[in-house]
Amino acid sequence: MYDIIERKRDGGVLSDAEIGFFVDGYTSGRIPDYQASALLMAIYLRGMTAEETRLLTMHMMNSGDVMDLSSIPGATVDKHSTGGVGDKTSLVIVPMLAAMDPGHTFVAKMTGRGLGHTGGTVDKLESIPGFDAALTVDAFLSCVREHGASIIGQTGNLVPADKLIYALRDVTATVSCVPLIASSIMSKKLAAGSSCILLDVKVGSGAFMKTVPEAVELARAMVEIGEGMGRRVKALITNMNRPLGRNIGNALEVAEAIETLQGRGPSDLAHEAIMLASDLLELTGHFDREEAEMRAHRVIEDGSALAKLREIVAAQGGDVRAIDDASLLPQARLHETLHAPHDGFITRIDTERVGVATAELGGGRITLDDKIDHSCGITLLKNYGDPVECGEPIAIAHANDIGKLTAGLTTLSGAYTFGTNEPPPRRALALRERDGIGRHIRALSP
Amino acid sequence: MYDIIERKRDGGVLSDAEIGFFVDGYTSGRIPDYQASALLMAIYLRGMTAEETRLLTMHMMNSGDVMDLSSIPGATVDKHSTGGVGDKTSLVIVPMLAAMDPGHTFVAKMTGRGLGHTGGTVDKLESIPGFDAALTVDAFLSCVREHGASIIGQTGNLVPADKLIYALRDVTATVSCVPLIASSIMSKKLAAGSSCILLDVKVGSGAFMKTVPEAVELARAMVEIGEGMGRRVKALITNMNRPLGRNIGNALEVAEAIETLQGRGPSDLAHEAIMLASDLLELTGHFDREEAEMRAHRVIEDGSALAKLREIVAAQGGDVRAIDDASLLPQARLHETLHAPHDGFITRIDTERVGVATAELGGGRITLDDKIDHSCGITLLKNYGDPVECGEPIAIAHANDIGKLTAGLTTLSGAYTFGTNEPPPRRALALRERDGIGRHIRALSP
Repeated sequence: MYDIIERKRDGGVLSDAEIGFFVDGYTSGRIPDYQASALLMAIYLRGMTAEETRLLTMHMMNSGDVMDLSSIPGATVDKHSTGGVGDKTSLVIVPMLAAMDPGHTFVAKMTGRGLGHTGGTVDKLESIPGFDAALTVDAFLSCVREHGASIIGQTGNLVPADKLIYALRDVTATVSCVPLIASSIMSKKLAAGSSCILLDVKVGSGAFMKTVPEAVELARAMVEIGEGMGRRVKALITNMNRPLGRNIGNALEVAEAIETLQGRGPSDLAHEAIMLASDLLELTGHFDREEAEMRAHRVIEDGSALAKLREIVAAQGGDVRAIDDASLLPQARLHETLHAPHDGFITRIDTERVGVATAELGGGRITLDDKIDHSCGITLLKNYGDPVECGEPIAIAHANDIGKLTAGLTTLSGAYTFGTNEPPPRRALALRERDGIGRHIRALSP
Repeated sequence: MYDIIERKRDGGVLSDAEIGFFVDGYTSGRIPDYQASALLMAIYLRGMTAEETRLLTMHMMNSGDVMDLSSIPGATVDKHSTGGVGDKTSLVIVPMLAAMDPGHTFVAKMTGRGLGHTGGTVDKLESIPGFDAALTVDAFLSCVREHGASIIGQTGNLVPADKLIYALRDVTATVSCVPLIASSIMSKKLAAGSSCILLDVKVGSGAFMKTVPEAVELARAMVEIGEGMGRRVKALITNMNRPLGRNIGNALEVAEAIETLQGRGPSDLAHEAIMLASDLLELTGHFDREEAEMRAHRVIEDGSALAKLREIVAAQGGDVRAIDDASLLPQARLHETLHAPHDGFITRIDTERVGVATAELGGGRITLDDKIDHSCGITLLKNYGDPVECGEPIAIAHANDIGKLTAGLTTLSGAYTFGTNEPPPRRALALRERDGIGRHIRALSP
């Protein structure tokens, strides 16, 4: 291990055997934390080649169970978001994809829980009464085969190396490093087994990547890993300079996802869902872009995507009535409206702060041990660029505890910047050829 | 601690409070190894300013006992060598200095043990029967006051931060870093309390610093620390491309040091001892260079330095008869001569290898737990640049174990390179102004 640290410290390239030695040794406890953290800092400051990053990802993937999807009779597609605020696209596109090419394209989705300012799909689904996100692997696969899709939390032994390495990075200031972020994300996506992977890389004030070049760098690293491991991979750079849609908070986001599947969702969410679902179907290689987009629109219009959501929820033990009657989802007892303090325009939203406010209201986790109250969250009445009058309601906070309500509202009110002039329109992310955008990475125009 | 790691990771400058927080926290066990090693790697790759290095040294110095030399009625002088092979200069210059300015200049020397290819002054002195290098602080100070000098091993609680940090650096590939080396050495020298410090920075095949620029960089960092802490400090860059003197191994080196004090030592050792002793006396500010050198020569010629050695050895419980009769020092039972394999010249000596051979013969420690046999070592009959005839004896190995004798001889024989042409003469180290040599750093012409 000493030699491995030394080589990376001096800017050298680690071999397959060396990277495997580190991952296996650290996961098994033979390599102590202090050597692992020295190596991680050396990687942080010296970087890793694309091949080193691929090998790190491969050894991490192989540190635990790797899902076997060979019993699925068709293409398997998966999507990963690097984390945003109000990002409920998985809830929308998983049933869409199951409906877009039934019997041929399947979604076997393992997903995470929320932490800090970002939410998690498992938490959101668990706001549906009875929904079971902890199916056995057999039940999960049989739900995928029968209904075209299933969504569960990660199984216990998926990429144990990532859990250990991430925990160490978290306390040694080695989180924000592209090869380490990319290997952490991709080891889990690869272990989940799907052959087509779409990466939704968020950029902006509510995302981990604050600038487009950072987001592109991460996207490229992840695409290279996935392609190097024989998967079909594409990345989409999407805007997180404002929350996605209007609702933030678990049950509130489920309700908004259902509205979107009913064809009456907010335009930014609806557009992003159509784009992501089309990209994934195109990635299977069985459809051209035009056909994929046509099918994405059709499954919303004809209600077949919503019907698939009912099927999946029912198969996983959830109360299907909640799909058609949002009042059956958990409701908060306390509501408070935030008002505009001036006439003018909303010229900026600190999106991460909106996510933190949601957690403070009770709808998220500040620490891993926090318990989530699914009913809590925020409904935005006005968004970036909207004109407001002094005293006009701009958002509603939902909570069950007066202290949390006050804390969340205080944080939320600080997230807005008002100005007297209309801000520039929400434009397409300014991505250009020189940002490295290519065949496998593109930006979504919001 | 996270913020401290992050700041250094990003190339920032740590504050007094931050460096103190790290040193105190790590020494007390509040900061875990894995955070300390991440910071050390960040320091390794990002460096430290002179002021950061001084602050690190100061906080390390204050992590344990700091020797109080205020009871010594005069200037206190100390010398540190970065470690070489056959370097017995401390044994020569400590009694010289006690004799050069008696009653006004004192040497209160705390010194270390040997490890790897380098020897330690404490081990050497302990080859004198009865010599006690573990005096109490009171006995040590009273020996200094009465006889002008004393040499003991480091007391238990001197710079505990260094012990902990060094042990961690040793297993995380963060040893070879100038600010960390300089703070490690200087924290101990400063805690030992002397007001004048001469740093003997070895450079060459037997030293930790292999090149002159590296040695100068370390010398400058240490001088800056010492001056910044209000001490008078000077550094001498000296040649370690061959062993110093003829003898390597503890009792053998004591015998050679005594010969040098008797005026019949090898010329390189005698010259280096005169230079170091003169530099230190000059550093007190009470003598000009000419007077200092004159006194250094005189204490050899008139036998007063040798008399001081007798005094010190007697005061520390050693058998004084061994000073005048080398046969009373430990003698090895087995001796084997190494012969030249060709006619020609010795064109290179791998000095580190000579040190390792000495340890293998039994005269050093490969690991900290090894027990030293004081009688073992090497006598060089020929040195760098000497002409040799095929079959001519070039060195004698001394050991008490036939296995160790064979192992040491094998290593030793590989340390020589022979050639048919006379190599360049041992020249002054090629130091120039552009190497950064200034008032406080100079090179010794061997």
